[in-house]
Amino acid sequence: MQFKEFNICNILDHAAHYHGHVSVVSSCVEGGVKRTNYLEVYSRTKKLANALNSFLGVQHGDRIGTMAWNTSNHLECWYAIGGVGAICHTINPRLFSDQIDFIVNHAEDRYIFVDLSFVPLVVDLLDRLKTLEAVIVLTDRDNMPDCSELDVPFYCYEEILSAHSEHFQWPVFDETVASSLCYTSGTTGDPKGVIYTHRSNMIHALTSIQPEVFNLNSDHTFLMVVPMFHANSWGLAFSLPMVGAKMVLPGAGLDGESIARLIQSEECTASAAVPTVWTGLLDYLDRTSQLIPTLTETVIGGSAVPSTMIDRFENDYGVDVIHAWGMTEMSPLGTVNRKQKYWDALSKGEQLRVKCKQGRAPFGIQMKIVDDSGSMLPRDGNASGRLFVKGHWVIDQYYKAKESALDSNGWFDTGDIATIDPNGVMEITDRFKDVIKSGGEWISSIEVENAALIHASVSAAACIGVAHEKWEERPLLIIVSSKDGEQSRNGILKLLGDKLAKWQIPDDIIFVENLPMTATGKVDKKVLRSEFGDHYLST
Amino acid sequence: MQFKEFNICNILDHAAHYHGHVSVVSSCVEGGVKRTNYLEVYSRTKKLANALNSFLGVQHGDRIGTMAWNTSNHLECWYAIGGVGAICHTINPRLFSDQIDFIVNHAEDRYIFVDLSFVPLVVDLLDRLKTLEAVIVLTDRDNMPDCSELDVPFYCYEEILSAHSEHFQWPVFDETVASSLCYTSGTTGDPKGVIYTHRSNMIHALTSIQPEVFNLNSDHTFLMVVPMFHANSWGLAFSLPMVGAKMVLPGAGLDGESIARLIQSEECTASAAVPTVWTGLLDYLDRTSQLIPTLTETVIGGSAVPSTMIDRFENDYGVDVIHAWGMTEMSPLGTVNRKQKYWDALSKGEQLRVKCKQGRAPFGIQMKIVDDSGSMLPRDGNASGRLFVKGHWVIDQYYKAKESALDSNGWFDTGDIATIDPNGVMEITDRFKDVIKSGGEWISSIEVENAALIHASVSAAACIGVAHEKWEERPLLIIVSSKDGEQSRNGILKLLGDKLAKWQIPDDIIFVENLPMTATGKVDKKVLRSEFGDHYLST
Repeated sequence: MQFKEFNICNILDHAAHYHGHVSVVSSCVEGGVKRTNYLEVYSRTKKLANALNSFLGVQHGDRIGTMAWNTSNHLECWYAIGGVGAICHTINPRLFSDQIDFIVNHAEDRYIFVDLSFVPLVVDLLDRLKTLEAVIVLTDRDNMPDCSELDVPFYCYEEILSAHSEHFQWPVFDETVASSLCYTSGTTGDPKGVIYTHRSNMIHALTSIQPEVFNLNSDHTFLMVVPMFHANSWGLAFSLPMVGAKMVLPGAGLDGESIARLIQSEECTASAAVPTVWTGLLDYLDRTSQLIPTLTETVIGGSAVPSTMIDRFENDYGVDVIHAWGMTEMSPLGTVNRKQKYWDALSKGEQLRVKCKQGRAPFGIQMKIVDDSGSMLPRDGNASGRLFVKGHWVIDQYYKAKESALDSNGWFDTGDIATIDPNGVMEITDRFKDVIKSGGEWISSIEVENAALIHASVSAAACIGVAHEKWEERPLLIIVSSKDGEQSRNGILKLLGDKLAKWQIPDDIIFVENLPMTATGKVDKKVLRSEFGDHYLST
Repeated sequence: MQFKEFNICNILDHAAHYHGHVSVVSSCVEGGVKRTNYLEVYSRTKKLANALNSFLGVQHGDRIGTMAWNTSNHLECWYAIGGVGAICHTINPRLFSDQIDFIVNHAEDRYIFVDLSFVPLVVDLLDRLKTLEAVIVLTDRDNMPDCSELDVPFYCYEEILSAHSEHFQWPVFDETVASSLCYTSGTTGDPKGVIYTHRSNMIHALTSIQPEVFNLNSDHTFLMVVPMFHANSWGLAFSLPMVGAKMVLPGAGLDGESIARLIQSEECTASAAVPTVWTGLLDYLDRTSQLIPTLTETVIGGSAVPSTMIDRFENDYGVDVIHAWGMTEMSPLGTVNRKQKYWDALSKGEQLRVKCKQGRAPFGIQMKIVDDSGSMLPRDGNASGRLFVKGHWVIDQYYKAKESALDSNGWFDTGDIATIDPNGVMEITDRFKDVIKSGGEWISSIEVENAALIHASVSAAACIGVAHEKWEERPLLIIVSSKDGEQSRNGILKLLGDKLAKWQIPDDIIFVENLPMTATGKVDKKVLRSEFGDHYLST
């Protein structure tokens, strides 16, 4: 058989050749919508590749940053940077500025491609970014800001492109060469870099298009909400062109109204995003009595999906929710929970229960759960333990780390606590660091939160374990609610009493305006623990 | 990212782990049906791997033959032989005995695993198979024939298995190591061997499960008709366990009645086979007024699918026909023609027309059509030329060949003539050697055959080019018809007049009882040309 090294750019070759006129639609930072297609993206990517080589002098293995929303420009950067053999470092602009400073210096980025909206952020950081040689602003001459007084050159993306030829031959190199780099948000310690290779991205993309994962084909119009600066965009920047699906890229517009308009105007059929984005969409639709009839399904991951969200999507808007789980360290795909035939025999309540699980691993990922002593636990749906994974698109070593990220048998510790049922369906019960240890028993913070979210007045909930004199830790529930006061507290506690064992019920509830969030849209429990950590000691 | 060599046996690991209790059902050569599951197949495969190593002394790279129908036993052989690092050589028992003799000696098979029904065939050939050390009969002690007088030992499969442990660790080796070997039937010259590697099989399987190819998931009950001794079983022996689909294996029962019974009793939802098998099924269903309501779709390839077959399947039995094209040299997947959204806007006739095309290549296959001078032809749906392919699962060199099977730019000449339309949809117009060259114009034999098959009385048709004094070649139509004679001939010619240009209409029609077939179920035009080659000269 012919041997050909995997190269992510061959995905774009294929899309241009077989699906050249399929649209790629982006909401622009400058306003309005840009309509292009795979053929144009392909030709512009080759222009950029020429520019990287000849104008910017990019060498094999160089790190090139991007700080950009999901747009066709950003897509071109991904492919061109990887295609010339450099490493596309996607920077999460929502990180604290000292984290951005840290990761750009750690990666030693030579250039950063930035959307217009992030120019002020980069300008502010400029004197701290030690390896930066120039900034390329992803816009045209008319919208180009005046950066002539700054210490490094700011180039105009469209000008660079128009100065270069669309003829370019992808260089051939080993498929285990790095194509991209994404830092974890680093809730403990400094952010850590995860390197994706051409091979890992390709196997991940081939896997993710299958019916039981993203179920992608050329008839789809896919709204790619999950940001390209977050967890490798769940591989969608590779898998969608691979099948020739129409791509709809929301740019900076991730609020409910913008998302709703894009689904309606582009007639999107499927999507993928974290729960917080969907809360915004559902609230907007509820408030304005609008519908999104073309959307048939959405994959949701990043945090556990509350059953209430599944219920709203399915009953109010006819959208199938497919729960998924992954990590930056897993490219990120771990499991997907797509409907199985046996669900038909379940009651509506049982179906909702099984939909709340994170699902099964596709071929290519191995999983095990272990107890504190490292012994393998049974796949009985009850035993819960620390989740370890292995596979073709799982990390081996953090970028520039001296040590392996794996244990001596090659397993990666996800830091999650999970059960696995006899059908292989996995459910995350908690993050290891979030689980509440009360009198020798473990309480799942997610389980308490999901129960609380059923209450009509509760729009967000976080349960943390806080120090307790007698029980070591006891759960404390922190909620955002439309009603506070004694009556509401009692109502919620009563509801929790119906859903949880007595010892799992939080001793107290605190009402807050907002929950603190991390840069990747998850509740920041570290902040909550620092604020409320002595709540039971002081009362 | 973790690097792990692809090994086909990891597919079975996954199936056992996630879909262990999913059924694998086989029609047995001994009669009756055997029901097992992925967990048992996995455990038996490991027993066989131990037997191959310790009892049979199989070494890395050894060729081990199989001459067997589609059954779970045969599946175990595929995985165990590949898994220990040897090469599973699937022998087509329908080949002429001197071809079998040739390929077993060419491959230097040390052992052959045979179904009970092929024991006489092997016994007959025994003194000509120079490298053969033993035969393993895929049956149990009770059904074991007495072969004690023969020159090589005949072992009982079940006895060997029961003597070995189910504990076995797959050895680790390079993923470009060969796992299997399949010879082309060799319509010209000796059969030629095609080597599949662990890597090529794995990428091919991952590709084939996607929605626009075989669209496989764990809810499927898949009737795998396409023989494991033919063109790598279209990769289904790998792709079905990869997704955990229920496998239904028809054994020797490929007649219409056996296939119908299996679909009905196992409630098969999808299938894949060559047209001849489906003709048998459709005729049987028509004759007995039976239905196959669970079957929703079937992939058909191997020969061009007549539009009449598509029509019968869809209108009479509610089965979607998905036309596909491939070659032994392509593992075998080349293109698949699954319904596209734009078909909805077509008339029924136009839809049927587009369904007769062979379809689009998935990511991983490149295609081009060229004229006689080697210049690339446009993808306009009209220009037809010689079809060349490249890709991760396309041959580079025939087994033991001294020369590459590719041209100097790495393209493989398929020997087919095709058009490609602007959507990338390919249509085979002929085999290069079957195309009829009449007065400088090319006539597609397939087009003439498809037109003839529309006539109600015609059940099989072959059109060949035969020597003609004035036009060099003229088409001659050879048909199997329920009615012959002048009236029928005139009726068919009139119909051809409605469908074809005047110069494309055969000058004569010959009525025959049966068409000669090759070992892989295709009409043997070589035989027809030798029999009727001077038809226009002698008349």
